[in-house]
Amino acid sequence: VSFISYCYPGSDKGVASVLEELFYPRSVAFVGFTSAPSDWSSRMMPRALIDFGFEGRVYLVSRSGEQLPGLQTFTSFTQVPEPVDLVVCNIPARATPGLLEECVAKGVPFVHLVTSGFSEIGYEEGRQLERQIVEIARRGGIRLLGPNCPGFYCPASHFSFSSLLPRESGTVGWFAQSGGHCIRFLRMAGARGVRFSKAVAMGNAADLDAAAFMEYFSQDEATKVICCYVEGVRDGQRFLSLARKASLVKPVIIHKGGHTSAGTRATASHTGALAGNDIVWEALCQQAKVLRLYSIEEMVNTVLPFALLPPPKGRKVAVLGYGGGLSVQAADDCERAGLEVPPFPSELRERLASFTPVPNNSVKNPVDTQHLVFSRAEWMETVRLATGWEGVDLAIFPVAIDMMPLLEEEDILETMVENIIAAKEVCSKPAVVVLHQGVSASMSAVVTAAASKLCAAGFPVFPTLAEAARALARCLSYYEASRES
Amino acid sequence: VSFISYCYPGSDKGVASVLEELFYPRSVAFVGFTSAPSDWSSRMMPRALIDFGFEGRVYLVSRSGEQLPGLQTFTSFTQVPEPVDLVVCNIPARATPGLLEECVAKGVPFVHLVTSGFSEIGYEEGRQLERQIVEIARRGGIRLLGPNCPGFYCPASHFSFSSLLPRESGTVGWFAQSGGHCIRFLRMAGARGVRFSKAVAMGNAADLDAAAFMEYFSQDEATKVICCYVEGVRDGQRFLSLARKASLVKPVIIHKGGHTSAGTRATASHTGALAGNDIVWEALCQQAKVLRLYSIEEMVNTVLPFALLPPPKGRKVAVLGYGGGLSVQAADDCERAGLEVPPFPSELRERLASFTPVPNNSVKNPVDTQHLVFSRAEWMETVRLATGWEGVDLAIFPVAIDMMPLLEEEDILETMVENIIAAKEVCSKPAVVVLHQGVSASMSAVVTAAASKLCAAGFPVFPTLAEAARALARCLSYYEASRES
Repeated sequence: VSFISYCYPGSDKGVASVLEELFYPRSVAFVGFTSAPSDWSSRMMPRALIDFGFEGRVYLVSRSGEQLPGLQTFTSFTQVPEPVDLVVCNIPARATPGLLEECVAKGVPFVHLVTSGFSEIGYEEGRQLERQIVEIARRGGIRLLGPNCPGFYCPASHFSFSSLLPRESGTVGWFAQSGGHCIRFLRMAGARGVRFSKAVAMGNAADLDAAAFMEYFSQDEATKVICCYVEGVRDGQRFLSLARKASLVKPVIIHKGGHTSAGTRATASHTGALAGNDIVWEALCQQAKVLRLYSIEEMVNTVLPFALLPPPKGRKVAVLGYGGGLSVQAADDCERAGLEVPPFPSELRERLASFTPVPNNSVKNPVDTQHLVFSRAEWMETVRLATGWEGVDLAIFPVAIDMMPLLEEEDILETMVENIIAAKEVCSKPAVVVLHQGVSASMSAVVTAAASKLCAAGFPVFPTLAEAARALARCLSYYEASRES
Repeated sequence: VSFISYCYPGSDKGVASVLEELFYPRSVAFVGFTSAPSDWSSRMMPRALIDFGFEGRVYLVSRSGEQLPGLQTFTSFTQVPEPVDLVVCNIPARATPGLLEECVAKGVPFVHLVTSGFSEIGYEEGRQLERQIVEIARRGGIRLLGPNCPGFYCPASHFSFSSLLPRESGTVGWFAQSGGHCIRFLRMAGARGVRFSKAVAMGNAADLDAAAFMEYFSQDEATKVICCYVEGVRDGQRFLSLARKASLVKPVIIHKGGHTSAGTRATASHTGALAGNDIVWEALCQQAKVLRLYSIEEMVNTVLPFALLPPPKGRKVAVLGYGGGLSVQAADDCERAGLEVPPFPSELRERLASFTPVPNNSVKNPVDTQHLVFSRAEWMETVRLATGWEGVDLAIFPVAIDMMPLLEEEDILETMVENIIAAKEVCSKPAVVVLHQGVSASMSAVVTAAASKLCAAGFPVFPTLAEAARALARCLSYYEASRES
């Protein structure tokens, strides 16, 4: 594939204003619509636009004339009478050059190719077809998204490729060279209270690519944190220099796929990308001062404190919740991650011990507050005193319902969650919650519902203390580095 | 606390036969029974014995004469007319020496002290009391379990400290210096299909300690895998030499709490243990060839292949399930963990491509089988061909319901789970399933129920591919080392 600059030569528009037009289309045509159950992607997007209340015009183009209530259907694209800002293409790969020529003739500025069967299939035929559509687009002034991807999500313009995503906008910008990863991150982080400015699955990124989106998100004022997943980029140096620039103004979190030889083989199958030498990548990421991660799960945990907390002042943590072995685990997990769990001074311990029905040792930090589940006032006072101490910068509230060998655990969990939400009033440091998973189907549902409540109250919620500690430590590393530079 | 040998001097009984008597008591007296809601531990155990159908005699001793249906209550222990094999003590710490004297007088062989308030409280008073009860026990020929712990679980004798644990026996032996960890591991691993021979929470381990249980489980024929959590042991060298002996006949997995300075401070609060120098521990664990882990979550994942799979022959894995970015992630995760994902030979790829509606590249390994959800026969043939290839030793079936941007995901998940269970028939290598968590409360419940079905069908089920890969790699390390020695 020949190198396609992220901005066409001769264009006087910067990438930021180009992409702003992509994210706010006034009219969209879905070409290749079918309601066949096997063709998920074709149904998914028009339905999502209806569900999101998209206010622009929407046309369906379906050779067999299939319909969706409220939308106009045409049997060929050339029949669409009005201008179209965005064509979403879902027809077979071999027919895409013809459609692109029709788009050129009509003056369509953006084409998003859901269609796969290009460079990712591993045959010369696919690579040739990808070159061909890029050439047609370039000649005709069309910007391409994809091919081989579900596209973008922009809650502010009521545009989404899936009905299951949050309707509200937020501060995280996200782009991914994988539709599956794109959707997983949106859903997993979304369920944890994170909201997005825009998100893009860029597929093979034949035209609009990682560099274009990095530049866009670094300039986008709605975006306060940039997250991305890349498998390979055409010009790694350039991409990482854009990432470095971005990281001077906002945190940049990168998950690079294909960092092992088996993974590299898999990226070729996936987006036709050449993953590049991982040692070089690692060094460049360090130079660029971006946070580099190795999975979507890590990215979900890592984005939480950036998206939901004010910048913490330092690494000293008060742990209020667990008792016994889990307190030991909590202290180990914090210290391994690079946080500190300073022992409370004797004066503070004495004040806590005066109303906490556990031995002196258990108010040292971590503090065992299990016995305070049904004593709201004492629990609140514990939080007030512990987080009021100048020796800590952060609070962690762990809840381990899987530790209770009892039958009444649902009620206990509810009370614990209410206690934590009430404690927001008296907690004077940024705080996160650790909520262990349930082990039965009913407990899983109860725990997930409890997590939603805590998220709605503004808490970052983590499944394990180790993950919370690693996420907080990464967040602190970014802020410490930006204070230095 | 003075050093108490794990076998009393002069006793001609080995630890194995002593502990066998503990696990199979013919009569139990719960001293300090109360039905007050705040006193969970006191209610929990008599109720569990009723629920488990314990066949021995059970007495309650309650000063206020509280009752449970079907059980005899006495207002003092001395009133119990018949011999008692095990006294479970739930009275305040200061009253325990008196009870122990009564037990000596009655010839009770075992006392389990649920009671806390001994060396773990961090005052000389507690350490003194612990020395005192150990001295009474030693003089009177009583073996002590605890203090400060919920006790033991032995499904074969219908004895359990909690009603929520599996009724069936299994092959994993587990002992922990933490009641919370003990219960969490039993419940979490239990929910994943693991069953136990016996499990013990040993608390402060004032008498029966980690060395005693390591020796017992190494000799116990019902136990095929030993798992333990320790914070500190009196004689680390001796403990690890017993662990080394055990690991020659069965895998030994150790989670050591207090491996950081903050964690070490916390172990003192928890069980009064001195955690010891972590570098020394690490070196001793390596010498002892035990698997050392850092959390209960890791232990749950690690025990699965040992407990549920035949020993795999090698490190080569076929990954059948994900597509796209998740396939890249899967390949990266496997290789990082030390597994291999060998590309399929062209002949096998051609056979798969002849009926798989995805491009050639996606049948390389990992194989994208998402398109086969509703094509059972083709899915089965894919499993048969891929696992039949002599170039792989193991199969991983990943299911990522969080990747589906659709509303019909519950039905799709059910079909995927049925497909995997059906594929057992044609799968010729040990196989594990990766099942991503649900993001909504309803999906969490559905995913947990799906996990139960897969567990019931005998599959180890992991929440992420990275955890599956690490667990399989650890399992292979053990078997490779034991083939060498």
